[in-house]
Amino acid sequence: MTATSRTRLVHPVVIAGGSGTRLWPVSRDSMPKQFVSLLDSGRSTFEETILRVTGEGFARPVVVTHSDFRFVVAEQLAGLGVEADIVLEPERRDSAAAIAVGALMAARRDEEAVCLVLAADHLIPDAALFTADCQRAAEGAARHGRIMMLGIEPTGPSTAYGYIAPGAPLDEAGAFAVERFAEKPDRETAETYVAEGYRWNSGNFVFPARLMAEELAAFAPAVLDAARGALDAAVADLDFLRLDAAAFGAAPRISIDYAVMEKTRRAGVLKTRFRWSDIGSWDAMFDVKDKDASGNVLEGAVSVLDTRSSFVRSDEVLTTVVGLEDVVVVTTPDAVLVTSRERAGEVKTLVAQLHREARPEAGQHHRIHRPWGWYQRIDIGDRFQVKHICVKPGGILSLQRHYHRAEHWVVVHGTAEVTVDGTVTLFHENEAAYLPIGCTHRLHNPGKIPLKLIEVQVGSYTGEDDIVRLEDIYARK
Amino acid sequence: MTATSRTRLVHPVVIAGGSGTRLWPVSRDSMPKQFVSLLDSGRSTFEETILRVTGEGFARPVVVTHSDFRFVVAEQLAGLGVEADIVLEPERRDSAAAIAVGALMAARRDEEAVCLVLAADHLIPDAALFTADCQRAAEGAARHGRIMMLGIEPTGPSTAYGYIAPGAPLDEAGAFAVERFAEKPDRETAETYVAEGYRWNSGNFVFPARLMAEELAAFAPAVLDAARGALDAAVADLDFLRLDAAAFGAAPRISIDYAVMEKTRRAGVLKTRFRWSDIGSWDAMFDVKDKDASGNVLEGAVSVLDTRSSFVRSDEVLTTVVGLEDVVVVTTPDAVLVTSRERAGEVKTLVAQLHREARPEAGQHHRIHRPWGWYQRIDIGDRFQVKHICVKPGGILSLQRHYHRAEHWVVVHGTAEVTVDGTVTLFHENEAAYLPIGCTHRLHNPGKIPLKLIEVQVGSYTGEDDIVRLEDIYARK
Repeated sequence: MTATSRTRLVHPVVIAGGSGTRLWPVSRDSMPKQFVSLLDSGRSTFEETILRVTGEGFARPVVVTHSDFRFVVAEQLAGLGVEADIVLEPERRDSAAAIAVGALMAARRDEEAVCLVLAADHLIPDAALFTADCQRAAEGAARHGRIMMLGIEPTGPSTAYGYIAPGAPLDEAGAFAVERFAEKPDRETAETYVAEGYRWNSGNFVFPARLMAEELAAFAPAVLDAARGALDAAVADLDFLRLDAAAFGAAPRISIDYAVMEKTRRAGVLKTRFRWSDIGSWDAMFDVKDKDASGNVLEGAVSVLDTRSSFVRSDEVLTTVVGLEDVVVVTTPDAVLVTSRERAGEVKTLVAQLHREARPEAGQHHRIHRPWGWYQRIDIGDRFQVKHICVKPGGILSLQRHYHRAEHWVVVHGTAEVTVDGTVTLFHENEAAYLPIGCTHRLHNPGKIPLKLIEVQVGSYTGEDDIVRLEDIYARK
Repeated sequence: MTATSRTRLVHPVVIAGGSGTRLWPVSRDSMPKQFVSLLDSGRSTFEETILRVTGEGFARPVVVTHSDFRFVVAEQLAGLGVEADIVLEPERRDSAAAIAVGALMAARRDEEAVCLVLAADHLIPDAALFTADCQRAAEGAARHGRIMMLGIEPTGPSTAYGYIAPGAPLDEAGAFAVERFAEKPDRETAETYVAEGYRWNSGNFVFPARLMAEELAAFAPAVLDAARGALDAAVADLDFLRLDAAAFGAAPRISIDYAVMEKTRRAGVLKTRFRWSDIGSWDAMFDVKDKDASGNVLEGAVSVLDTRSSFVRSDEVLTTVVGLEDVVVVTTPDAVLVTSRERAGEVKTLVAQLHREARPEAGQHHRIHRPWGWYQRIDIGDRFQVKHICVKPGGILSLQRHYHRAEHWVVVHGTAEVTVDGTVTLFHENEAAYLPIGCTHRLHNPGKIPLKLIEVQVGSYTGEDDIVRLEDIYARK
């Protein structure tokens, strides 16, 4: 490492606010792909992204995410034992505003800060190469005063990415000026680009924070003003920094590519060496995975017969394929997707159709995450419903009341502190609590291990909206 | 109707002992296709078969089934309000032995009896045409002294069926002598057969009981002897007639086609007019169903996008298909099958593979049927398991004890009579019983409506084999 990289920390800005439907049914609006365990490691791409920028040479990460995802971000960071500044966007305003916020945060820590902006939903198998490339990009950005794009070597003439034409070399370390910046091309054009040595625009950037602010001021001042206003009026809320909604809402919806990169004369591109995928479809996911002898990627409870070049994945339910080629089959406990690798990009259209059909599976996961833990329905019938509930250590559900159902709670793991009409009782594994209709009750895990219980609801109506929340430590309505 | 049919009842013999894997995962060894709700009516093909032979002109049906299926047969008959003689095969010895038993049973009722032998797993949409054809066949069988095969008009050159070449007409009513009896042909031969007016052998027969006994005596005497011996030593067991295992086990394993039909000079064939399918594969099932505008058959919680000529069926879990053609997708709560219509016949091979892989889903259904009702697992985890249990009115589980688990029962429908260590208590909807480890307990539905309860098991081991059965009204071990 050079003196530059040793003395100046890189400030990671992880953009984790996107909602992803292209990997439905595993990724859904309520829990998009960056937070889902998609990888062999069992970790989410958000977790992998955080791990890549933790350690020597990196400052405390800034995570910019949507308010809806604050608890899962906090939970996954805690699981990794990593501390970060979590900035909450009250609404989605595209990448320019999010990056502006990240750049301003870093500049307030250190005027000379160099930022590394990373999408949380990309897959990069080669961690060491990635870190080395980032350091090269950071040096280039600082030395040449450039906004360096991490330019990926194309593995084929994809029409899914923007392309970058490298110009004159800036140094010996792989940094080049940008000669041209081309939007997603058609197939033929893409082939020309690949032949001419263009690079894919990965949407990851390295830049001096001050330079990004200058370029935003020049080309997208409304974005910069909104980001600055949102940060100035931001309020701390538990462990989060909540951007001011009115100020942030004024930011134009525009991507950093359109807002800055296509206009600035300070762009650079690093010819990266690491493998990369934005896993923008099940087929893209298939591409980066190791294949078996039949060219298949088989994950989970799967059995196939005479099947080739296919991606078959199941979370739980036995999933079988007979005599097919080039198909994608993805099974979750409440939804199954069957398509071809070629048509896998149309899953987004399917999800829109499912929304029109008012299918809850379109946007909601089977397992519903809450700040205190999660629950999932395991059975439902006439006048009853059964849920599996998991409460994190320290988790407390709201103080609540139901008008149409009684509840039986059987503790199967850990210890529950149950408050019923003001009386507090501890329940341990293999003990059951009864909550009559109309009682005021609260569930708390006072222990050090997760509390798991089976809830049997009995009554004339078991919908989620039969709940009166009297108090909630997570400030939910 | 002629005088013959008016004065002589036809004795239906329904053969319902087969195990079917070709419609896996809906049909499994533990509950094969003839008992599963596959049809738009919501009824099983066994139920439809029984309904077709109930009413004017038909005697009380004889049902020949495997001992494993006795409770489901009794339950489905009771559901239809139909009484039948249920004969239990202690083991499968192919169709000759089963038909021999049926013929002997009918002959013991009436020496002149004419039998109608029907497979319980065939689909016949045209009930009135079917009945009329059966009466014609019965008349022909009685008048000409023939074993009449119900010969189906081919809808194409299928290689899945045996073919029959009709010879000289026996009468004006569609009965013909049999010129030739051809086993399953190759495609080219099948085309010739179809062009030459051959008929499919449906495996359904009509014959005078005495004639069948004579032909068995002539061509397969060991089969006849075994059937006679098994009937002579049969014992009544609850509502069933249990064939003698030693005698029946001596029957050669042979089909009626090989044992009698290819040898007898008394075969006839009726040119039937009804539509028919043996639903021997998902593709055969697809063939007989009505299609939508895209040529699809979509059943249950299904949503497709740009998909054609496909069969997509789901019992429960949302199942989606994007951009495919000619595929079969079948989803059950614990297993998913994806194949092409062309390859759907290979599901049998898949099931054999699943058995080799020791997957319980290969042969066991998610919902496990018992004489007292059914149960299904709805959740399982470390040291716990949750089941949904349904007990029929009057149903009584065995008196039992577990060494490794306690159980919580929450009644969600009906009334439970629970005996714990000799103390009997009634539990109603929204009441819960607790069964500590090691207690002796019994569950009984004393009411008039099904009892449904949620069972939460907690303990160090929740396997099915942790059960000591102390008493069982159904004489199970």
